Amino acid sequence: MSDHSEAPVAPVAAYEPPYYVAVFTAVRTADQSGYSETNARMEDLVKDVPGYLGMDHAQTPGGLGITVGYFRDADALTEWRSNAEHRAAQKRGRAEWYQNYKLHVAKVERSHGFTRAGR
Amino acid sequence: MSDHSEAPVAPVAAYEPPYYVAVFTAVRTADQSGYSETNARMEDLVKDVPGYLGMDHAQTPGGLGITVGYFRDADALTEWRSNAEHRAAQKRGRAEWYQNYKLHVAKVERSHGFTRAGR
Repeated sequence: MSDHSEAPVAPVAAYEPPYYVAVFTAVRTADQSGYSETNARMEDLVKDVPGYLGMDHAQTPGGLGITVGYFRDADALTEWRSNAEHRAAQKRGRAEWYQNYKLHVAKVERSHGFTRAGR
Repeated sequence: MSDHSEAPVAPVAAYEPPYYVAVFTAVRTADQSGYSETNARMEDLVKDVPGYLGMDHAQTPGGLGITVGYFRDADALTEWRSNAEHRAAQKRGRAEWYQNYKLHVAKVERSHGFTRAGR
């Protein structure tokens, strides 16, 4: 799609396996001061990781948030995981923003996608 | 947690790997008639699959929905994938409810969780 600004939200593509997903599920605390700035910074920063493929996010108001990061290989994940600014953000997240979270890092074995035909 | 009804929403646990995640990301159409009934039926039905571990869901209003299903092994996924009622629901989803979706089936290699200490 060339018209990014007008395009409806679309999920990250089903790439050809293998690739990796990092599934992050979280419930946040009441105090979210500084969260959105840090989150925006992380979204910028991860784009510089070689092998980063994209990110999906959904947030039920008042409920669970799910972020899925997509990476070409384990090296890309290792680079993102060891990024100093990312580590500092994670530490602050545990101290302030997250009530409860889980991370599941997984190697994709099968994928497919569906897009409705235009009509 | 024993107080299900009072408990805040909590993400599915970080199990000991290996296990599988099925990450389903979707944008829905304007016509959602019948969706919620079918969705509730599928949530009931999947609980009967041996090796089913749980499901996380988040939905940004007007935006992306992400559902993550957790399964102990590939056999559990195969059973759910081949369930006749599930297949009929998927077919109806493509015909009516989904504008665009992706499915990523992946084997978890690493997981961890964080829960805030009570205070």
